[in-house]
Amino acid sequence: MFSLKGIYTPIATPFEGGSIAFDRLEHNLNFWLSSKLEGIVVMGSNGEFVSLRESEKERLVRFCCDRVAGRKKVAVGVGSNCLDETLWLCRLAAECGADAVLALTPFYYKGAMKEEVLKAYFTEVADRSPLPVILYNMPGNTGVNTSSALLSALSHHPNIVGVKDTGGNIAQIAETVAGSDPSFSVFAGNWAFFLPSLCMGARGATLALANILPDECVHLMELYQAGRLDDARALAVRLMPVNAAVTAQYGVGGLKVAMEFMGLYGGEPRSPLRRPGPEAQADIKRILLEADIRLVG
Amino acid sequence: MFSLKGIYTPIATPFEGGSIAFDRLEHNLNFWLSSKLEGIVVMGSNGEFVSLRESEKERLVRFCCDRVAGRKKVAVGVGSNCLDETLWLCRLAAECGADAVLALTPFYYKGAMKEEVLKAYFTEVADRSPLPVILYNMPGNTGVNTSSALLSALSHHPNIVGVKDTGGNIAQIAETVAGSDPSFSVFAGNWAFFLPSLCMGARGATLALANILPDECVHLMELYQAGRLDDARALAVRLMPVNAAVTAQYGVGGLKVAMEFMGLYGGEPRSPLRRPGPEAQADIKRILLEADIRLVG
Amino acid sequence: MFSLKGIYTPIATPFEGGSIAFDRLEHNLNFWLSSKLEGIVVMGSNGEFVSLRESEKERLVRFCCDRVAGRKKVAVGVGSNCLDETLWLCRLAAECGADAVLALTPFYYKGAMKEEVLKAYFTEVADRSPLPVILYNMPGNTGVNTSSALLSALSHHPNIVGVKDTGGNIAQIAETVAGSDPSFSVFAGNWAFFLPSLCMGARGATLALANILPDECVHLMELYQAGRLDDARALAVRLMPVNAAVTAQYGVGGLKVAMEFMGLYGGEPRSPLRRPGPEAQADIKRILLEADIRLVG
Amino acid sequence: MFSLKGIYTPIATPFEGGSIAFDRLEHNLNFWLSSKLEGIVVMGSNGEFVSLRESEKERLVRFCCDRVAGRKKVAVGVGSNCLDETLWLCRLAAECGADAVLALTPFYYKGAMKEEVLKAYFTEVADRSPLPVILYNMPGNTGVNTSSALLSALSHHPNIVGVKDTGGNIAQIAETVAGSDPSFSVFAGNWAFFLPSLCMGARGATLALANILPDECVHLMELYQAGRLDDARALAVRLMPVNAAVTAQYGVGGLKVAMEFMGLYGGEPRSPLRRPGPEAQADIKRILLEADIRLVG
Repeated sequence: MFSLKGIYTPIATPFEGGSIAFDRLEHNLNFWLSSKLEGIVVMGSNGEFVSLRESEKERLVRFCCDRVAGRKKVAVGVGSNCLDETLWLCRLAAECGADAVLALTPFYYKGAMKEEVLKAYFTEVADRSPLPVILYNMPGNTGVNTSSALLSALSHHPNIVGVKDTGGNIAQIAETVAGSDPSFSVFAGNWAFFLPSLCMGARGATLALANILPDECVHLMELYQAGRLDDARALAVRLMPVNAAVTAQYGVGGLKVAMEFMGLYGGEPRSPLRRPGPEAQADIKRILLEADIRLVG
Repeated sequence: MFSLKGIYTPIATPFEGGSIAFDRLEHNLNFWLSSKLEGIVVMGSNGEFVSLRESEKERLVRFCCDRVAGRKKVAVGVGSNCLDETLWLCRLAAECGADAVLALTPFYYKGAMKEEVLKAYFTEVADRSPLPVILYNMPGNTGVNTSSALLSALSHHPNIVGVKDTGGNIAQIAETVAGSDPSFSVFAGNWAFFLPSLCMGARGATLALANILPDECVHLMELYQAGRLDDARALAVRLMPVNAAVTAQYGVGGLKVAMEFMGLYGGEPRSPLRRPGPEAQADIKRILLEADIRLVG
Repeated sequence: MFSLKGIYTPIATPFEGGSIAFDRLEHNLNFWLSSKLEGIVVMGSNGEFVSLRESEKERLVRFCCDRVAGRKKVAVGVGSNCLDETLWLCRLAAECGADAVLALTPFYYKGAMKEEVLKAYFTEVADRSPLPVILYNMPGNTGVNTSSALLSALSHHPNIVGVKDTGGNIAQIAETVAGSDPSFSVFAGNWAFFLPSLCMGARGATLALANILPDECVHLMELYQAGRLDDARALAVRLMPVNAAVTAQYGVGGLKVAMEFMGLYGGEPRSPLRRPGPEAQADIKRILLEADIRLVG
Repeated sequence: MFSLKGIYTPIATPFEGGSIAFDRLEHNLNFWLSSKLEGIVVMGSNGEFVSLRESEKERLVRFCCDRVAGRKKVAVGVGSNCLDETLWLCRLAAECGADAVLALTPFYYKGAMKEEVLKAYFTEVADRSPLPVILYNMPGNTGVNTSSALLSALSHHPNIVGVKDTGGNIAQIAETVAGSDPSFSVFAGNWAFFLPSLCMGARGATLALANILPDECVHLMELYQAGRLDDARALAVRLMPVNAAVTAQYGVGGLKVAMEFMGLYGGEPRSPLRRPGPEAQADIKRILLEADIRLVG
């Protein structure tokens, strides 16, 4: 029985020469597998899922599930405005041995994404997915928010196990926790509001930051669970600039640069995303050093 | 030499039993081919391009180009957050004999879509597309706007021939016309601001409304070109409620309902979009009748 | 019987030494009075009405009405989130001999400004104002838009004579014209969409640009009315950069700088607005010269 | 030396027959004065400060300071788009014996409210105010947000003692706490994110909810300070629907209705705000009862 808790990282997808660099990915996976992470998300927003062809998605999911081989949980991003593709990815993830799927809000026809439309959509996905479904609320990228009322209603579906909420509205997160089925887990989608989300009842997080600092992310949760709120807050604050650098400030390109400073393979994101220039790279290095992160190499 | 002018309709994609209904599409195509339209757009927003699998896209483009067979212009929507898919569609469109491609602004990583990023992206697409490129600004669905400054800069690229602007900011449309290369055509993307766009120098439009009323849409342009501005305005105003019903108000589902009242095949849109219920259908019928549209059957 | 038509300018309020500079205002008024303007708006957004104390408002309205003395129409901005202040200003305007009032949408409690609330509010203002009421839709500053449905409903009130729509949504402007009482005048609130508004049935405009180029603004309308749409468009386009400089780009401070280049008194706007620095001043000068504006002095 | 901490309530302003009902206010003040509140805010958003004439503001401040007479802290809202009015209110507050002023972000000319403009503005207010200044960030009503970088920069001004942040962006609140002068207090502006704000270092709150449930609001803070986070969360969650009813859902009108259920005087808000109808009143009563609030009378 899958239980959604702890820290996941939405792994970056490495590219080289225009293709997915599976050898580089293996190197990175070994780092994450040796960490205290609960699991990884394949094809999350930081995994550039929108920039992958169907055939690439298939190979990527298969590769990650093979390599992880049960040592960590694997959640597969199945977000698409095409329901048929989403359901194909759900089946593929199940076939490859993943543990859950992460279902993004459909968003292209924003004006039509009313609550009842989204409720019917997610119910259909959950009804038909062979794997447990984690909802994915990402209004910054989709322009559509799933309200706490909708999330609470969906929380009672037997095949919906939680939500990754990246919107950062802490009141909504608290209301979702309070109003949902006890079996339903709320995850924070960004370090910037991870600690307050824990304070309001979240059970974990999916964090871009955990690509580079997985054990520190896990440590925050340990501090919180030990009742050491002041220490947790100090850690949360110390890594805020690093988190900003690899998310809002420099995006996926910045995350990949930071990964290189940690001994991982970064490389270029796919167009239209771009690798930050030398000045931004120096800024990222400075931010890491100021946060007392030990750089590798 | 392709010249972007006149009225195009972004054709609805008919589904039946979960698949593209090519026989229904043929029926509908015959209607559009017998109209005064300059061309059609395959896989525009009203064609539900985001809800199609790669293989469906291939068959759809091939089918439409085959059936049109040069009798009308064909522009193929190649929008995707995956550049590789976009370029594949450009090549496919060329191979099938289409006349141009319609390249939507990439939009998933909204925060990263700065002007210079978009400029580099569209330049790369235009450099590599074998067919002339029409830019597609659709901020209502993408959450990203391409400014008149960006559009004007891109207008000088030898393989960029125009923009379909669905944002509806008439000042931006006027500035784009005024600031762009003389060879560059500005198209209105919605009937709601088509006539004022003509007044400010637009050369045509791509109109959802033209799915059901192609000749009326062409007639507006004829009235304008004949200097009959009062008659043009009267026509524009008369069809505004109909246009709203098949766009903002009831969306693609509403368009498909309206198509049925005109003797075309409508059917269901793909999930998460839905067919409007009986009450909405009655409302659409009323709106058509109040605009003096003759219903078929 | 007041009829709303032609070009008005929302006059800048001149300050010197922290107070309204009435002598400077007289100098400026003489320029506007000698132009082809239909009227002026006292205490519009460009008049910095939100930065005036009650006692200053009283003196300013009195002064302008006295000096204009019937030679032009005078509309008085009565916008306030305090209904009592609005009604006081309506009575004051009437007492001073103004022709109409310009009633801004109340906006502080944005979440509560539903259509029926706004309808009740404007109805109460119109019921109690001794002068004809012009509605003022200014979503850029207020964050609240009055829909075409609301404007059309209000258009039938016997004491509501028109709307100044500064939102720039040309479809909304067209729908408002089409749906309103024949006695109701729609005014464009910015040069950027003045010509397309005329094309859709607007009867005039209230233009910041007319502070510096009143006769050119009137000329656009004359060209349009003479059926010279191409010449009108050329004029509209030529002055677009100038209009941007004195509105969106450099704001009220930029308008005051531009006024000085035209021989008028500009001076400083009130805090928090600021006078643009030397670089911006040089840019404004360049923009004026590039638009073939003859500078004074 | 004024220290900003604990719970304040932004007191509702009672109206009767179109005027401020000072006898009703006295009744209400007695309730708040007998509570555990640290202080009150006169002329906050819930005090309908935007709907008061200058003379009313003067009488209201004077009356409240007289009646409170040092038994609680008094902060006076001095927000206005007119700097001169703001400074007048600062002097008035000082003269009447208030403890601090609450300075709202100016907001009418949204496009011009850049960080450096706001910094200069607040610095000028703080330089010239005889009382300590509390910044007031209220993006929901103003449409302008003051970033954590700006707040942190202003935190070092010797006469700026804190910020009431009603935006609810918990990451911004955490960053502001972390980046500001140690003397600077961050206050949550709404119960919906009060507890997570405490977890991230906030020192108190200004809460509409405290109009009706002052001691419960204080109790949350006591629970938090005693390390009883689970109990604090339970209380936070229990009162969330009540808080929503008196803020986002039914606004100031809803707050006044709820006050009546608690034995306070509520009455009507000023136009354009309205008292909710019978159905909404019944809903508010139900929400109070479901949250185990004992109604009075």
